[in-house]
Amino acid sequence: MAEIEVGQAKRARAAYDFDQIALVPSRRTRDPENVTTNWKVDAFEFAHPIIAAPVDSVVSPASATAISSLGGLAVLNLEGLWTRYEDPTAAFAKIKSAAPENLSQVLQQVYAQPIDPDLIISRIKELRAAGIVTAASLSPKLTQTYWKQVVAAGVDLFMIRGATVSAEHVSVDENALNLKTLIYDLEVPVIVGGCATYQAALHLMRSGAAGVLVGFGGGSSGTTTSVLGVKVPMATAVADVAAARRDYLDESGGRYVQVIADGGVHQTGDVAKAIACGADAVMVGSMLARAIDAPGNGYHWAVEAGHPTLPRASAIPTPSIGSFAEILHGPATNASGQLNAIGALRRSMATCGYSDIKELQRVEVIVSQ
Amino acid sequence: MAEIEVGQAKRARAAYDFDQIALVPSRRTRDPENVTTNWKVDAFEFAHPIIAAPVDSVVSPASATAISSLGGLAVLNLEGLWTRYEDPTAAFAKIKSAAPENLSQVLQQVYAQPIDPDLIISRIKELRAAGIVTAASLSPKLTQTYWKQVVAAGVDLFMIRGATVSAEHVSVDENALNLKTLIYDLEVPVIVGGCATYQAALHLMRSGAAGVLVGFGGGSSGTTTSVLGVKVPMATAVADVAAARRDYLDESGGRYVQVIADGGVHQTGDVAKAIACGADAVMVGSMLARAIDAPGNGYHWAVEAGHPTLPRASAIPTPSIGSFAEILHGPATNASGQLNAIGALRRSMATCGYSDIKELQRVEVIVSQ
Amino acid sequence: MAEIEVGQAKRARAAYDFDQIALVPSRRTRDPENVTTNWKVDAFEFAHPIIAAPVDSVVSPASATAISSLGGLAVLNLEGLWTRYEDPTAAFAKIKSAAPENLSQVLQQVYAQPIDPDLIISRIKELRAAGIVTAASLSPKLTQTYWKQVVAAGVDLFMIRGATVSAEHVSVDENALNLKTLIYDLEVPVIVGGCATYQAALHLMRSGAAGVLVGFGGGSSGTTTSVLGVKVPMATAVADVAAARRDYLDESGGRYVQVIADGGVHQTGDVAKAIACGADAVMVGSMLARAIDAPGNGYHWAVEAGHPTLPRASAIPTPSIGSFAEILHGPATNASGQLNAIGALRRSMATCGYSDIKELQRVEVIVSQ
Amino acid sequence: MAEIEVGQAKRARAAYDFDQIALVPSRRTRDPENVTTNWKVDAFEFAHPIIAAPVDSVVSPASATAISSLGGLAVLNLEGLWTRYEDPTAAFAKIKSAAPENLSQVLQQVYAQPIDPDLIISRIKELRAAGIVTAASLSPKLTQTYWKQVVAAGVDLFMIRGATVSAEHVSVDENALNLKTLIYDLEVPVIVGGCATYQAALHLMRSGAAGVLVGFGGGSSGTTTSVLGVKVPMATAVADVAAARRDYLDESGGRYVQVIADGGVHQTGDVAKAIACGADAVMVGSMLARAIDAPGNGYHWAVEAGHPTLPRASAIPTPSIGSFAEILHGPATNASGQLNAIGALRRSMATCGYSDIKELQRVEVIVSQ
Repeated sequence: MAEIEVGQAKRARAAYDFDQIALVPSRRTRDPENVTTNWKVDAFEFAHPIIAAPVDSVVSPASATAISSLGGLAVLNLEGLWTRYEDPTAAFAKIKSAAPENLSQVLQQVYAQPIDPDLIISRIKELRAAGIVTAASLSPKLTQTYWKQVVAAGVDLFMIRGATVSAEHVSVDENALNLKTLIYDLEVPVIVGGCATYQAALHLMRSGAAGVLVGFGGGSSGTTTSVLGVKVPMATAVADVAAARRDYLDESGGRYVQVIADGGVHQTGDVAKAIACGADAVMVGSMLARAIDAPGNGYHWAVEAGHPTLPRASAIPTPSIGSFAEILHGPATNASGQLNAIGALRRSMATCGYSDIKELQRVEVIVSQ
Repeated sequence: MAEIEVGQAKRARAAYDFDQIALVPSRRTRDPENVTTNWKVDAFEFAHPIIAAPVDSVVSPASATAISSLGGLAVLNLEGLWTRYEDPTAAFAKIKSAAPENLSQVLQQVYAQPIDPDLIISRIKELRAAGIVTAASLSPKLTQTYWKQVVAAGVDLFMIRGATVSAEHVSVDENALNLKTLIYDLEVPVIVGGCATYQAALHLMRSGAAGVLVGFGGGSSGTTTSVLGVKVPMATAVADVAAARRDYLDESGGRYVQVIADGGVHQTGDVAKAIACGADAVMVGSMLARAIDAPGNGYHWAVEAGHPTLPRASAIPTPSIGSFAEILHGPATNASGQLNAIGALRRSMATCGYSDIKELQRVEVIVSQ
Repeated sequence: MAEIEVGQAKRARAAYDFDQIALVPSRRTRDPENVTTNWKVDAFEFAHPIIAAPVDSVVSPASATAISSLGGLAVLNLEGLWTRYEDPTAAFAKIKSAAPENLSQVLQQVYAQPIDPDLIISRIKELRAAGIVTAASLSPKLTQTYWKQVVAAGVDLFMIRGATVSAEHVSVDENALNLKTLIYDLEVPVIVGGCATYQAALHLMRSGAAGVLVGFGGGSSGTTTSVLGVKVPMATAVADVAAARRDYLDESGGRYVQVIADGGVHQTGDVAKAIACGADAVMVGSMLARAIDAPGNGYHWAVEAGHPTLPRASAIPTPSIGSFAEILHGPATNASGQLNAIGALRRSMATCGYSDIKELQRVEVIVSQ
Repeated sequence: MAEIEVGQAKRARAAYDFDQIALVPSRRTRDPENVTTNWKVDAFEFAHPIIAAPVDSVVSPASATAISSLGGLAVLNLEGLWTRYEDPTAAFAKIKSAAPENLSQVLQQVYAQPIDPDLIISRIKELRAAGIVTAASLSPKLTQTYWKQVVAAGVDLFMIRGATVSAEHVSVDENALNLKTLIYDLEVPVIVGGCATYQAALHLMRSGAAGVLVGFGGGSSGTTTSVLGVKVPMATAVADVAAARRDYLDESGGRYVQVIADGGVHQTGDVAKAIACGADAVMVGSMLARAIDAPGNGYHWAVEAGHPTLPRASAIPTPSIGSFAEILHGPATNASGQLNAIGALRRSMATCGYSDIKELQRVEVIVSQ
């Protein structure tokens, strides 16, 4: 590992974002028709590895169904507007109509409404009733309180998601979440994160997770770096966590944990880049928030945007460019890298000579600065 | 080869674009009048090494003649507008008059018109009748179908060009193109590409090509990196393929394959940079699309711009700045690096102290970031 | 130490700014409520490590009291407007109403008014009367003249601050300041700087200083690099001086000198970055000049901006974004990284898994370019 | 020397510009009053090391006198407007009033007027009559033709200046300039360049030059990189040539050749940076073209801007900011780095702890990217 001397008392490591790397074709090529983009986590199989992130701008009960019907997984945030309001229409409308300079405060206001535990249950049942893979997320804090109800309500995939989640949370609160014991207690597969380093990921894998989210709260709407000074560039984070997956696979005698890039995937080309770094799947927000049928209605905002005292994300404009179907499966009507994400992934694989996602993880990459 | 650790599970290589390098004068200087820019491929000799790329914005039957009379090689795209329309005037006019936001879709529409095989033949005959070196290109896919007719119609130089072309294309289609056998069957010299790595280039050289195109579909109008995540910065790609040329020269007992930089040459200074990296010639699009007499009529677009479901290039404005003659031979009336490309190449050679293109490949270069 | 060859006769060292580094979470996390941000210099303890810099745009006798009541240290510049004018209201108004193109000259005019020694005394007494930790600064030049009066007037913390201050000032003036003897003579703790290298800092530490300022006159309003060509990027400077602190701690048998980052802290995330490089505290100007209750009234300017013949800073607009209380303790109403600096520092510590400032100095960092 | 692999067939060297480096204060400081900026070439001594470049936007017979009276050296271009026109007032007016889009062509027009050999003589006499150090420049080509007249007319310092000048010019023209014999024949000290590498500089030093110009035609108005692909970043070029000076000093048994940075010095801080890399003096164009009393009258253009077929520089706007006196000696009325260049140099030296220019060459530098 190449170390950099920041100064005499501090060494650092060089780290890279997706926009600093690119895929290099191998000496083989393939037909885009002859590659597969399938992705599987636990017993659930999907036609492609693009997951809709649990953000209110992308996943509602209705859009989850739409996204699922297009072959993907959609995760509902159980701490978003859908569990704070029986009918969140007015809340979405307030955001839509806010003046740009007031957007942050309007988000703080609509998220000030407390979560209604009954709505947690009913939203899960709503998803189940739609006949789709029922996936929902809670923060570590509320997981402790609500996990039994969520499982009882019939969730298929449970996501525990925070900006940074560790298996070794130190708290004076003796009721604080202990991931090490909890995940093994849960009877459904758990995806947990974000994490951004080999060590943090390895500990999450050991806790029994089916998948780990790689990220640090640094999505396209995020300002974690400005506010907290914290950042792990995504290409490096994914490649580190992929190393943890490999080592844990050996240590566990064969348990393969899904590595999911959560952040930094803004253009269709970033999907291939994340996989090239070792991701099995990607979780996206802004990419799908650009859909005409996305609940965000022209805006995307991460969960952290509504924090009452320290927001770490802004609502960003995401002008509508097509339907969920066009964003995922095309046809693309321009070359902006925002449409036909699966078609683009197929062509990346074909151009580089690989036939499935696991193979594509081997592709050569360059760093360009 | 200096490797970079992107993360623990992924290593990468640092790669460089033309705009990150520059030529360093040697301790000798020469008079610009005493250098030669001649370039030769197979039996065909040209006054200079700037090839007009097979794009509709640059090469028409008429402009091919004009460019040839200025000492260069022009390649007609046999899958462009000239083989889709008996008279493409209306198609060009549609592009010219499209509103910027509709340009991509207008390109998709005009390229939706199927190719007329009869026009392939007649366009080649049209070029031959003009008495110029008749050079034309097909994609790998259509090469399989039409190569016999193209050769029969009298092509002098055959170009097989795709974004990424390999000598080991894996396909379930048993009629898919096998470059290894095809090129030896063709009775005319073949230039083939793009490729961007030592291995891919070496295999193309072994297939019998007279020249290889170095590039990845990343010309000035291209968005391959955004859409597919694929990129090989041109300085690195050319220098890698030049190494393949050197090694193949030894392996083959003396067959010298032309290395042609296809992409990244936007300013006159880029010609010298490509040669400094090891190119024997360069193929340009936008540089010549800026001609008053270019068919693009103020726009440049790469072949990929018209793809029906996944365009990977946009039409970019290329305001006219002079005639083909002024762009190639000057006089330049400003210092923008867009005029008098051959005069600039002569002066680069003279300033750096080299007298021909082969010598200029030895020039020292610096990397500046 | 990695050396770079600039050219054959000159080697250099790579140096880094705060915006090129970021903190990496460890494998532990904590609750933000369970961390402490306390900071102590000599016998004085503060609730947090953010010091208000001795600049007229931030610290007046009135704002010093406000900032102190919020748990921090504020330092009054004894060479600013408050010692040049009995009532500086008109001077501040002139700056406020100056046309942008005249700002530099207006600053030169208002600072052309000579310092009134009596006001030095009365301002210190004014601070003392407010019952706060009385901290004030002089340049090295005037320290020689006024230090006895300043100490006699009851200063608690004495700051000797210049763009670059060394313990080995070479002068033909035999009355020039000799820091080596002076600091030991002073009966109050002394903070001295700026310095930017291991050697310069070590010599200042040996002179008996309680704290050293790390910086080179390169705050947000500074143009030292453009004007003088001098720059030491802050992450590197802090990490070098932290190494001097460590070595001096051993050499002195246990005297711990405070390392204070003076420059480069513009966003809340920079506080954590400075600490990650080894700082014990940070001194800020523009961050607090954005307060509605800041004397700068919409502008920030460093001391060097009023220099009569060679200004090395400009007045920069700092639109008001909230009260001192909101900037330091929140709540933040947006995610700009300008509000709730202490809340952000707590969350950085919690996210990264550390419980106090000394621990946070150990956090892993990455370099991202 | 750290080598970079551009690609397998090409290695390169990392090179740096002045804006990528900065000076680091040593552990000593000094008073700005106690440093000296004197500079000497051959028998001629100057109060400071800033030379006015032989460009029409800066040096006229009148401005040469003004600049000399401020302690500096000014060099008149004997191939500029003053030797093409008896009275160039109309030519300057044409440039001044040209529409921006026509500026290049207007420059080509006014420089199309042939040089009048009689004016070469009379301009030198005009300078001599003013009682200043008479310095004038010719290109290598015209040096061969006119050097005898120029020397006979009484030039004190002869400058042979081209974009790239080598001691080994290869030409079929048997009358071409042979610097190796010429410089020894000249009875006046000769400054020659540009050159940009150790080898080229060493050969020029061996030809007997009193000083060498380091540069490649890349001043602020230059586009050599875009047009020719040639560039040697200035910090690297100066440091390489300084190594040649050191080695030649040994080889020659003590002949110290002045190294003059010719290009890249746009702000006052760049003067100190050039010296830090090993320069003894700097030659500036745009910095002085900003003078109210500069002949360029709001524009700066390098010699290459008027080339009839391949201009390699543009006229750039240089809004007037003060007199020659204010630019060189201040007082500065703002912090833009454009005024009080000598005051800034003094302060750089004082801040870094050095007392003369030769000492300042030893200052530590950092690279910041």
